[in-house]
Amino acid sequence: MKHIVFLIKCPDHKGILADISSYFANKGFNILQCNQHTDTIANRYFMRLTLDGTDLKTSRRALESDFIKFAAERQLDWSVHYSDNKPKVCLMVSKTSHCLYDLLERHNENELHCEIPLIISNHPTLEYIADQFKVPFFCLPVENGNKAEQEQKVLDLLKKHHIELVILARYMQILSADFINAMPGHIINIHHAFLPAFEGGDPYSRAYERGVKMIGATAHYATAELDRGPIIEQDVERVSHQSTPDELKRIGKDIERIVLSRAVKYHLENRIIIASNRTVIFK
Amino acid sequence: MKHIVFLIKCPDHKGILADISSYFANKGFNILQCNQHTDTIANRYFMRLTLDGTDLKTSRRALESDFIKFAAERQLDWSVHYSDNKPKVCLMVSKTSHCLYDLLERHNENELHCEIPLIISNHPTLEYIADQFKVPFFCLPVENGNKAEQEQKVLDLLKKHHIELVILARYMQILSADFINAMPGHIINIHHAFLPAFEGGDPYSRAYERGVKMIGATAHYATAELDRGPIIEQDVERVSHQSTPDELKRIGKDIERIVLSRAVKYHLENRIIIASNRTVIFK
Amino acid sequence: MKHIVFLIKCPDHKGILADISSYFANKGFNILQCNQHTDTIANRYFMRLTLDGTDLKTSRRALESDFIKFAAERQLDWSVHYSDNKPKVCLMVSKTSHCLYDLLERHNENELHCEIPLIISNHPTLEYIADQFKVPFFCLPVENGNKAEQEQKVLDLLKKHHIELVILARYMQILSADFINAMPGHIINIHHAFLPAFEGGDPYSRAYERGVKMIGATAHYATAELDRGPIIEQDVERVSHQSTPDELKRIGKDIERIVLSRAVKYHLENRIIIASNRTVIFK
Amino acid sequence: MKHIVFLIKCPDHKGILADISSYFANKGFNILQCNQHTDTIANRYFMRLTLDGTDLKTSRRALESDFIKFAAERQLDWSVHYSDNKPKVCLMVSKTSHCLYDLLERHNENELHCEIPLIISNHPTLEYIADQFKVPFFCLPVENGNKAEQEQKVLDLLKKHHIELVILARYMQILSADFINAMPGHIINIHHAFLPAFEGGDPYSRAYERGVKMIGATAHYATAELDRGPIIEQDVERVSHQSTPDELKRIGKDIERIVLSRAVKYHLENRIIIASNRTVIFK
Repeated sequence: MKHIVFLIKCPDHKGILADISSYFANKGFNILQCNQHTDTIANRYFMRLTLDGTDLKTSRRALESDFIKFAAERQLDWSVHYSDNKPKVCLMVSKTSHCLYDLLERHNENELHCEIPLIISNHPTLEYIADQFKVPFFCLPVENGNKAEQEQKVLDLLKKHHIELVILARYMQILSADFINAMPGHIINIHHAFLPAFEGGDPYSRAYERGVKMIGATAHYATAELDRGPIIEQDVERVSHQSTPDELKRIGKDIERIVLSRAVKYHLENRIIIASNRTVIFK
Repeated sequence: MKHIVFLIKCPDHKGILADISSYFANKGFNILQCNQHTDTIANRYFMRLTLDGTDLKTSRRALESDFIKFAAERQLDWSVHYSDNKPKVCLMVSKTSHCLYDLLERHNENELHCEIPLIISNHPTLEYIADQFKVPFFCLPVENGNKAEQEQKVLDLLKKHHIELVILARYMQILSADFINAMPGHIINIHHAFLPAFEGGDPYSRAYERGVKMIGATAHYATAELDRGPIIEQDVERVSHQSTPDELKRIGKDIERIVLSRAVKYHLENRIIIASNRTVIFK
Repeated sequence: MKHIVFLIKCPDHKGILADISSYFANKGFNILQCNQHTDTIANRYFMRLTLDGTDLKTSRRALESDFIKFAAERQLDWSVHYSDNKPKVCLMVSKTSHCLYDLLERHNENELHCEIPLIISNHPTLEYIADQFKVPFFCLPVENGNKAEQEQKVLDLLKKHHIELVILARYMQILSADFINAMPGHIINIHHAFLPAFEGGDPYSRAYERGVKMIGATAHYATAELDRGPIIEQDVERVSHQSTPDELKRIGKDIERIVLSRAVKYHLENRIIIASNRTVIFK
Repeated sequence: MKHIVFLIKCPDHKGILADISSYFANKGFNILQCNQHTDTIANRYFMRLTLDGTDLKTSRRALESDFIKFAAERQLDWSVHYSDNKPKVCLMVSKTSHCLYDLLERHNENELHCEIPLIISNHPTLEYIADQFKVPFFCLPVENGNKAEQEQKVLDLLKKHHIELVILARYMQILSADFINAMPGHIINIHHAFLPAFEGGDPYSRAYERGVKMIGATAHYATAELDRGPIIEQDVERVSHQSTPDELKRIGKDIERIVLSRAVKYHLENRIIIASNRTVIFK
């Protein structure tokens, strides 16, 4: 194993950096990277620590159970991630292919540190892409008020495949709060607008109506409130009076692709700490 | 005189380009530039025509009265602009200096084709900058319910100085509908957010709360509805979890400067046609 | 057929717009779009004219032979493009997959108005992607001084498949002047640097050495001089001291993809006129 | 005093973070910020440490002489900066005003943590701006082979005013190696091109000739080799075939302003460590 990443958040207090870095130094770890952020408004401290995995001389369990005591005394809220664990990721889609294509292609090119054991869709449209990339495809339509039932089937599939991250790659269904709360902080959505502008449906038509000169896309963690979860990444592109709604949609596709893939990458590299409704991202 | 610019909008119909360009060619004008836009959704046609001013062999009055007939037959909504006319511009400010500095500096560097005969403020704070650049400064405070009266004084000053364009360079007062309707399409405002996100007050604090990863600024024509007028220009800058509201404000200043100066430039170069609540901008 | 596009370049002279637009208006054509550019330095005029194809009442041959006379009298250098013609495009690649993936994916999503009857590579590496997208793949290695022979085989394939555009989608072989001159203005290359910086090999390592704070990519028409042909499109991305050469390569991939696909789109939509070593692009 | 900033560079080795952070923690300092970078290629470690200045219980001399010993044992190359010290900065200009205006304006708005006791120019052109902002202006022309003499006069002025940073704000003279070596790492230049493209003179004309689709500007530390010093900041703007060399110059001005002011800010906030010919910048 190459790396061990600790993500830590806690109340800010004097001496915390020396305290934590000495803890790991004393255990013989080389600290390869250490990023910190102090939120001086909320008085909170955030840290991402990358240790050299080859320095681990005990079991992982021993490492963690020792750190639990250290953390408890200092009110640390933490998680640990080992680089030899490849998280299992489920892609959820509807009829739009560009984000699905992009993620599968990046996965093929080893840009995304994960496994993709399945794709779930509420439409059969994109099955041919799943076939192209040889990923199992499950079509679970939403119809006739079967939404709760459909979501349960999705959750069952996620559980069965030990999914740690769900990517809504233009999945055009609003998920229930129950579904989202089953995986808090582990569902990434791409919204095709520069949030908080144009929350909800049909943002490109509304952007056209408003006559904006740039359009954008936003990747965020899904929460029970639609399009209001912690933002991970955003980007924009310049448009003009010439851009019809269809043209905006086409231009937007490239932004969505880039923004979603960056957000997924940050998550998979354990660079994100959620802080109430904001994200701390250590690049 | 070097150039004559015609701005034209009308219902779209076949043959209109040949029709208009032949009209001017037959009068002996060299067409230096011709930009067009067809709004296929609203079925409207827009044109910006730059003629060689040295080809004008009649009086301006004769040119215009002849064109009036041509235009009426074709339902053209039009305006004409002669390059030897330098529009008179009034800057309105409050306490924030960066946009004022930027516009005065660009004016000094001959980047803005206009005269700036006066600056109006509701606070005395920035008088020293007006002094630095030797521009008359009028302080007209808004207090104790004198708003209508104050606005009337402003309008009187605008009239007296033959002002053709008002630039709200971070003027922190909401103007009445009456004021705005006195100069429709001739008041440019800079809003310190990426509209339609964060309309209204204190956008940087709200951007911080929402945890956005980019902030922006928007220059638009002021209309009776606050921050809802036709957008002229927008731009954004990347921010991060490290950016406090104060830092956002500082980063935002550079975007505001650039966006406002671009919008003013487009207006002064007669590149903008307002089309309902959108702008057609011929760059 | 929906559209007919004329691309025209000629010496600039008075009345040319009215002259050309009247020509087509008199033939009963609705001019859907007309873009022009006057190069005041070289005194050259450029025009892109989109006609409503349903207004064509004669044969294409008749349209063209009539226009030939009109054009000769005015020294117009021109070409005409009918929207029901789908140009045939050949992708040339080596071992790097991201540009190939991107183009095939966009083609599948109907973003590129062309057919892709074949992919040619000097390595077998990417055949699996050609298979994924069901495009014939030809592996023609360059080895033991067989370069001239290999290029002849490529040219034979291009001829056989009636190829009108070759896209060097990270084809890591320098083409001979003979090859390039066989298709002047019809070979698009993507260079993984912001030209004219870092012409030639290994630009990312050199960008790292130089400590640049942004990296870029450039799409250009290939000419006999390596990386010196007319530039079509460029873009950049911000990097930092943290970016190793490998990281630059990864970041660069996204820029290359976007830049190449934009350039190809402009070409296929007949938006580009080459003017000595520069391009006029009507967006 | 609010902050003490230590900038440190040294060979990378295990335990260094815990080592240094414990050193300051043991002395009772709160570490407000700690940024690090490990250059895994050169095997070098870089650190920027911000201490709470109110925790300083000894003299500055005592702090430093104690740290000297600590540093020597670990081969640390370091500097210390106290926030109550306002560095004295000299602006050098020729005939172009936009960068001068921008820096003076930002200084007036308290964006730049420095004093500007003098402006030096080889032309009298911009004296009126110095007057506007009430900064002493020294005109030292370069003529008739007096360059060495002129440079000596400049150096004398710098020494007399205890200048710690020289900003070449479009100073159109090539400085001698002797001059530059008198203040290594303390002269910032703005080059009006995206280095390493278009080193040397007249970059905008050459950018026009080459037909680039973006132009840029680069702020870097001046070294004896013209336009080859460590890059601090770069940015670009999109241009088109319509942009004449004059238009490029105008567009470039806004990029130059922004890029230079960012670079100066990073320097004045002690965010930059020079590492051979590259810069590590802790934002």
